[in-house]
Amino acid sequence: MSEYSQTERTRVRRGSKRANYDKETINAILDEAMICHVSTQLGGQPLLQPTIHWRDGDQLYVHGSSKNGLFRALLEGSEACIAVTLLDGIVFARSAFHHSVNYRSVVIYSQARLVDDADEKSRALDQLMEKFHKGRSDEARRANETEMKATSVIAFTLSEVSAKIRTGGPVDDPEDMDLPVWAGVQPISTVLGEIEYENR
Amino acid sequence: MSEYSQTERTRVRRGSKRANYDKETINAILDEAMICHVSTQLGGQPLLQPTIHWRDGDQLYVHGSSKNGLFRALLEGSEACIAVTLLDGIVFARSAFHHSVNYRSVVIYSQARLVDDADEKSRALDQLMEKFHKGRSDEARRANETEMKATSVIAFTLSEVSAKIRTGGPVDDPEDMDLPVWAGVQPISTVLGEIEYENR
Repeated sequence: MSEYSQTERTRVRRGSKRANYDKETINAILDEAMICHVSTQLGGQPLLQPTIHWRDGDQLYVHGSSKNGLFRALLEGSEACIAVTLLDGIVFARSAFHHSVNYRSVVIYSQARLVDDADEKSRALDQLMEKFHKGRSDEARRANETEMKATSVIAFTLSEVSAKIRTGGPVDDPEDMDLPVWAGVQPISTVLGEIEYENR
Repeated sequence: MSEYSQTERTRVRRGSKRANYDKETINAILDEAMICHVSTQLGGQPLLQPTIHWRDGDQLYVHGSSKNGLFRALLEGSEACIAVTLLDGIVFARSAFHHSVNYRSVVIYSQARLVDDADEKSRALDQLMEKFHKGRSDEARRANETEMKATSVIAFTLSEVSAKIRTGGPVDDPEDMDLPVWAGVQPISTVLGEIEYENR
């Protein structure tokens, strides 16, 4: 299966031309993005937190303190809605109304699973290091037992997933095309700078 | 008042050294960030969407189609939890456990208000254009009546707001300081490129 199946919740209703359910496309967005936003509700109140994430196949992982309130709510059964968003550009149209942004946005519905298998947990935490810096999991001192206990790893199966993607230039109304107004796209990129070493 | 007052929900519990309630600091984060994530719940299910935002004083604005499902839920009274997150760096420690990220993260709880006053709406939409490009609100063709009707502007009063901020290098355990492992910080920045003009 190369596409995520659409469900009532993940079918993009508005702007459906921008909808995308292709696994390869969506996985690439998940892998490129360094942070996600995880939301749930508890007692009718919304909870929302940013966190870093990583992926292995159809498993999306996040980690954090075992005492994290949002994580506790998720593990007690509250469903998660997770957003992964890359902003790619500002789109300047001739009319105010058609100004827009280029973006790649993924939304995931899933139930959290606590990763309590020691092998999966250890492998997942290595993968986290590798995402941010290839080879790092072999360089740094690995977590000891106490540190492993203080860290929760949570997995979400990628199944109910959709993306919305906008690319390209402004789409102005035909009657605005001759207005003396400049139009174009200003690209936005996330840049990793040179590492500032503390020792070496 | 130079600080947002802490409430039961916005008081940062874990990592409270990183907590920040200073209005100037928080407003600067809101102004620098181009997107926010807005969550709410409807019938016990979480809803979450990325969107661009802007600020005028203690009002945080978002806008979108009048038909947007999340907006409808908010305007029917579901409370919003909004996150604005800037990722500033990857922190490499000597131990896997103390790896971290530098970030500036704001979380807001608020009730949505539909901006139905024509003057406020028009001013707010001008401010949106100005945020992304100074002078643009006077350049582009302004929205006509039909376009204004198709656009909803929603305001959130900034009152129940907190930030969590991490800066600086790795904090390793004393016994790890002599390990032969490099440590440091890799800065992350969001870069606006040159505008690619379609006409001019």
